[in-house]
Amino acid sequence: MREVQVALGERSYPILIGEDVFKDPRFLDLVRNRMVAVVTDETVGALYSASVVAQISSCAARVLPVQLTIGESTKNWDNVNAIVTQLLDARFDRHSVIVALGGGVVGDVAGFAAAVYQRGIQFVQAPTTLLSMVDSSVGGKTGINHPLGKNMIGAFYQPQMVLMNLPFLRSLPAREVSAGLAEIIKHGAIADADYLDQVRQSMEELRGLDMEVLAKVIARSCEIKSEIVAADEREAGVRAHLNFGHTFGHAIEAGMGYGQWLHGEAVGAGMIMAADLSRRLKLLTDADFEMLKAVIVDAGLPTSGPQGAQWTPEHYLNLMSVDKKAEQGTPKFILLDGIGSAVFRRVPEAPVKETLVACTQN
Amino acid sequence: MREVQVALGERSYPILIGEDVFKDPRFLDLVRNRMVAVVTDETVGALYSASVVAQISSCAARVLPVQLTIGESTKNWDNVNAIVTQLLDARFDRHSVIVALGGGVVGDVAGFAAAVYQRGIQFVQAPTTLLSMVDSSVGGKTGINHPLGKNMIGAFYQPQMVLMNLPFLRSLPAREVSAGLAEIIKHGAIADADYLDQVRQSMEELRGLDMEVLAKVIARSCEIKSEIVAADEREAGVRAHLNFGHTFGHAIEAGMGYGQWLHGEAVGAGMIMAADLSRRLKLLTDADFEMLKAVIVDAGLPTSGPQGAQWTPEHYLNLMSVDKKAEQGTPKFILLDGIGSAVFRRVPEAPVKETLVACTQN
Repeated sequence: MREVQVALGERSYPILIGEDVFKDPRFLDLVRNRMVAVVTDETVGALYSASVVAQISSCAARVLPVQLTIGESTKNWDNVNAIVTQLLDARFDRHSVIVALGGGVVGDVAGFAAAVYQRGIQFVQAPTTLLSMVDSSVGGKTGINHPLGKNMIGAFYQPQMVLMNLPFLRSLPAREVSAGLAEIIKHGAIADADYLDQVRQSMEELRGLDMEVLAKVIARSCEIKSEIVAADEREAGVRAHLNFGHTFGHAIEAGMGYGQWLHGEAVGAGMIMAADLSRRLKLLTDADFEMLKAVIVDAGLPTSGPQGAQWTPEHYLNLMSVDKKAEQGTPKFILLDGIGSAVFRRVPEAPVKETLVACTQN
Repeated sequence: MREVQVALGERSYPILIGEDVFKDPRFLDLVRNRMVAVVTDETVGALYSASVVAQISSCAARVLPVQLTIGESTKNWDNVNAIVTQLLDARFDRHSVIVALGGGVVGDVAGFAAAVYQRGIQFVQAPTTLLSMVDSSVGGKTGINHPLGKNMIGAFYQPQMVLMNLPFLRSLPAREVSAGLAEIIKHGAIADADYLDQVRQSMEELRGLDMEVLAKVIARSCEIKSEIVAADEREAGVRAHLNFGHTFGHAIEAGMGYGQWLHGEAVGAGMIMAADLSRRLKLLTDADFEMLKAVIVDAGLPTSGPQGAQWTPEHYLNLMSVDKKAEQGTPKFILLDGIGSAVFRRVPEAPVKETLVACTQN
């Protein structure tokens, strides 16, 4: 089993990566004699809920399975309230525990429910997708969507631990493996050129779900993300680098209607756009741009924005101006200052429009 | 102007108590060039919103008045979502500020909106009632109600400062002044016998809204509350002492339907019950019980629970078992171990029932 620490003072926690993580004594101690809710969705629930519930039942006071309906639209208040209602009905108290068993959507909703249930109870992230293992399960971002924007309601709320059970990945569709690779590529692009090179060379094994290669890569991605989160928990500065590709990506997701493109697919195209913009601003060489684009192609991700006459630069700019990273209406961008190094800056509208035209298929 | 510090490390903040607190330079610096929402309700809005908005407008980038409908039922998700929607519509970003101008309900709802808007923005508590000045505006508890219990959804989220503008109190109905006195009496009862004696001797001036006496008493109550909050921000231990009278009080509020009894009235009756229970358990002398009861009478507060055949001990016990302070179904109580000293303990059902019979008018 591999282990990565997220160093956040009194809110520090371990990430456990391996094939039998639910048997870890720290997890068993956490749930011992507690009321424990295992929150999941239909897909994951059918595959894995029973075995996880059975393992927890051996030492918890009670295990309550809670099932959400699937999809990005799951990230709404009704689902948070449904969790709260079921916990109150079962008389869960402030010492109870929520285990979020699923992808990023389940983790975000269940984590936010944990953040607000009786002003906050303990929770454990148990991500079941590659994307949520390397991205949303680490760092404490929880939340739901609003009709006016993604993740507009939420909390920074850290889990007690993150359990990454690698065998879960065997049931993951290839498209979702690619989506997870987008965030892995991002970690190399913004923080570690050698790691990006390793990922590039291991792409076949990664897409083929070679457990040993996956474990190594997931651990390195978690290390990079953890270091950034530890330096800036509430995203006042360097944590924004993790949003490389996301300003464009969120615009794609918002404009398409959430769930049409997978988050990782939107980030794939978004990283190309952000790298193209970096090149136009003379921060990135053409060769590095082409290399990054090739890695994204190899991962099976889209490299341009959605098709359709409505995808004008103005449409993108409008979608981006309510992005959380916008300050009073003016979008800022995470750019690459060479591979392995990111910068956050305000960009004039002209080069942004050039990038949007260049990266849109019309 | 009096000032009390809430010492919470990087989350520390000042409480300013006086007659011109909105002109304090620290407040003006906080809102300077920011988007600022002033959240209030109909009653307070009609009286004070325009003047507060005008003062903030002198240096903010924009001031957005947001008005909630009045009453305890205001504490629901629809109102939180209404705030979020108005802020998103006005393109508020992560650097924007919410000012909660009103009583405890406005502070709880607006504070929770600040806690969850884009995962948390800055906010200022500007309490307009005596109750919210000495109780809910200090300590960072925010939240909303759920049909199955009061304050079951929320967050510990600290304001940047608390502005207590004493002239606001001149428009407060006498019944609400009494409700505020309940929490003031509580602070003396649990933490400072001399202070309780001062409050007892100043009762006439307090009920007559003598500004000098009020300022002194509000400052001392804020000190007591701040010290307790600083020692235990998330209510893992000593902060529970602030719930003296509240386990019984919440049962009264829940059973009556929120808003029928004022919170301070329910706490008044609840403190008598908790003191009666303390006496039965030989923690409090009969003389001290009678003294505390006399202070509560002098404050104009009820000293027994609601009338009606449904108010059996079993009804109370059932209402109390979903209280947040209950651990897995068994209620614990804050009791007085003499005046000025509180203890938190599990109590057998028999004396609790005796207290409930003794303190219910049937």
